[in-house]
Amino acid sequence: MSKDVEKRLVVGMDGDDTLWHNENILWSAEQKFQQVLLHYLSAEDLSHRLYETEMRNLSLFGYGAKGFVLSMIETAIEVTDGRIAVADIQSLVDLLKEIIWHPVHLIDSAAHVVEELSRSYRLILISKGELFHQEHKVASSGLADFFSAVEIVSEKDQSVYARILTKYDVDPSNFVMVGNSLRSDIDPILKLGARAIHVPYEITWKHEGQSSLDPKNRTYVLCNSLTEVAHALREMESMD
Amino acid sequence: MSKDVEKRLVVGMDGDDTLWHNENILWSAEQKFQQVLLHYLSAEDLSHRLYETEMRNLSLFGYGAKGFVLSMIETAIEVTDGRIAVADIQSLVDLLKEIIWHPVHLIDSAAHVVEELSRSYRLILISKGELFHQEHKVASSGLADFFSAVEIVSEKDQSVYARILTKYDVDPSNFVMVGNSLRSDIDPILKLGARAIHVPYEITWKHEGQSSLDPKNRTYVLCNSLTEVAHALREMESMD
Repeated sequence: MSKDVEKRLVVGMDGDDTLWHNENILWSAEQKFQQVLLHYLSAEDLSHRLYETEMRNLSLFGYGAKGFVLSMIETAIEVTDGRIAVADIQSLVDLLKEIIWHPVHLIDSAAHVVEELSRSYRLILISKGELFHQEHKVASSGLADFFSAVEIVSEKDQSVYARILTKYDVDPSNFVMVGNSLRSDIDPILKLGARAIHVPYEITWKHEGQSSLDPKNRTYVLCNSLTEVAHALREMESMD
Repeated sequence: MSKDVEKRLVVGMDGDDTLWHNENILWSAEQKFQQVLLHYLSAEDLSHRLYETEMRNLSLFGYGAKGFVLSMIETAIEVTDGRIAVADIQSLVDLLKEIIWHPVHLIDSAAHVVEELSRSYRLILISKGELFHQEHKVASSGLADFFSAVEIVSEKDQSVYARILTKYDVDPSNFVMVGNSLRSDIDPILKLGARAIHVPYEITWKHEGQSSLDPKNRTYVLCNSLTEVAHALREMESMD
């Protein structure tokens, strides 16, 4: 190791869909939502209407499972003109409980990669969503001890990342964010002058795939799996 | 001022029902919930059933408005054996939106007291609930700038307070928590060896009134309003 550990990169890591599966649980919940309502509307229209409700409610509910299912309940009432059975609404509340108590399944290699990275870098877990549910997932992941800090935030924008970097006294030029979401993990970090590694998840929620960056300015590194991240970080360091 | 500012007490302050009104909004929401269901059950029974559902769901939903209204929806379905009208369920979802967008009304004197205390003490706002909603309330309160730190937590127990004191390098003997809840603001802090000032709110949620402390060991100071807090803190300092 040619550089002092203190001077090595500080690595931010996203939780949902970067270290553990999340979107597949929500996807499967949406399938159940569609089953309940398929004799009212096509799967495609239902998906469209649910997304519209979610976007409308985002500034009220924030991100997370409770807001997701509350938007399902609202959409179900709307698209059926109030004709949905009360038992079906209860089944959506039950679906929320299934989502919340769904065991945390780590992405293949996440445990190994996080342990390996923690030996060389200061790691900060930066996870977006509902405090209570995210804390539960972080605790269940078994990975918390490898992180020097855990930040659970309600939004991941430039100002939130800037606040975190200031709090931990990290210069943007020394920070690399690793995550699956262009909107939440990559764009805001690049705008701050830090670097990013994009590790796409098998499913991307429409909202998280949206990027405001000019494709020409996308200077992040793409890794097809977490196992490539350590190598990508070493490459970044060798170019510093 | 006979003591160095650095050596003065560090003061933790609760948000909901200590600096701004909250329980009265939830109380009024519960009245509307009862109106919807009064031809099924008495107000007293409804209140009892709702509280039971809330307690059962607490470990799933955590504290906060979304969990509260989801418990209302479940209770409404249960106590009506599924006969509640779908339009009434939508009215409960609308009630949630009313709660979330309810303007923040400061407790009388809160702005003045917080400003005054901030001139003499390092203040930390420690607020329990949903991240997104609490951040909104803190921002809307206009008080954020008087606090040296804001901590939004999903639970207020001994370990959470211990973590906060460690994080800000505050010795428990130097810390005083000010809040309206025996369960959340007073008991855990006293068990840590810190001090507490209880400022009761006009309404106490059953859950927050519960205290595990032996009444003989209740060594906190009682203030009937926020305006007495500065005096109580000076008295504490004079005894140090």
